[in-house]
Amino acid sequence: MTPKGLFIVVSAPSGAGKSSICQRLLALCPEMQFSVSYTSRPPRPNEVDGQDYHFISREAFQTRIAQGEFVEWVENFNHYYGTSLRQMNETLAQGADLLLDIEPRGAKTVKENFKDGVFVFVLPPSLEELGDRLKKRGHESDEAIQTRFSQAASEIKEVSWYDYSIFNDDLDTAVSQLRAIYLAEKCRTGRLAHKINRLLSSM
Amino acid sequence: MTPKGLFIVVSAPSGAGKSSICQRLLALCPEMQFSVSYTSRPPRPNEVDGQDYHFISREAFQTRIAQGEFVEWVENFNHYYGTSLRQMNETLAQGADLLLDIEPRGAKTVKENFKDGVFVFVLPPSLEELGDRLKKRGHESDEAIQTRFSQAASEIKEVSWYDYSIFNDDLDTAVSQLRAIYLAEKCRTGRLAHKINRLLSSM
Repeated sequence: MTPKGLFIVVSAPSGAGKSSICQRLLALCPEMQFSVSYTSRPPRPNEVDGQDYHFISREAFQTRIAQGEFVEWVENFNHYYGTSLRQMNETLAQGADLLLDIEPRGAKTVKENFKDGVFVFVLPPSLEELGDRLKKRGHESDEAIQTRFSQAASEIKEVSWYDYSIFNDDLDTAVSQLRAIYLAEKCRTGRLAHKINRLLSSM
Repeated sequence: MTPKGLFIVVSAPSGAGKSSICQRLLALCPEMQFSVSYTSRPPRPNEVDGQDYHFISREAFQTRIAQGEFVEWVENFNHYYGTSLRQMNETLAQGADLLLDIEPRGAKTVKENFKDGVFVFVLPPSLEELGDRLKKRGHESDEAIQTRFSQAASEIKEVSWYDYSIFNDDLDTAVSQLRAIYLAEKCRTGRLAHKINRLLSSM
């Protein structure tokens, strides 16, 4: 029997640099798959359907909610975001490891449903730095930036129930910390039960 | 206030390659200190007093036991081995991280006394490989090797209560796994409370 895959949920307030860290981890660990979320938000420039998100209409999203297709979903800034339960279960059952990029409310729902996940929160070095990064993204109004900043501050309070926290002062360090968390979690005695039992049964 | 250091206890049956892995980790992580145990066993060739062990007489060891100086001690093949509680507490209080090389019985006592330690068990790839490695060490009689092999087999059963397990098929991989465990454990949310509280209190 193939042992079940491991999944890591990464959350962060906007501007903490989560997407860059996740992309770099995936490039370093080709055996890890990215869980592509569904959203009703329109794609940003450079975002690719089926790769960054599955982009669907509000109506299609609501139908999927009604059908119980999402392990978690939220409405944020008038757009829906959600993770497909079927897609997640299939990947893990095949023994593949999975990286999920989910905001704290959704992550909490995942944690309530899956006891064996690994939950990582990416933090900005400081609130000033977070404000600067949000301004530099340059594709939103001052008002939208201010709203994001307030939401970020409230999201940061959720860090307390995450297993691991990464301060993103430096991208390389943050990536190597996330990679270390992944490698370490693969060495958890509980996850190696199949290999350990094989050794013990040879005695 | 300096946050307390982290400690990692590494155990393994003789011949699993634990000493090489620990030495390589210490070379890679100069901020980590090695906990030098006390022993009444005579030094092997190349072993240095105060570096590999504090070598003391049986009588001196027994006096220290009576004085409650050891957080754990065992008698193994007629020699005592023990870890100084004072030395351990002082290092951790200074905020330094500590690597301890302790066999399973002693490690269990440490776990009962310190809730926040990290416990890692190094396993041989197979029992055949373990037998071969014990023979190759070449400084012991056939009978001693056989006794070590039987003890190793029984020690391996202790793996179940360790947090992490490392199969030492390949030294480089094993070292990078131990290093990942160290880095990951430094990112545990609970261990970063001082840094997280500073960020939260700036809101």
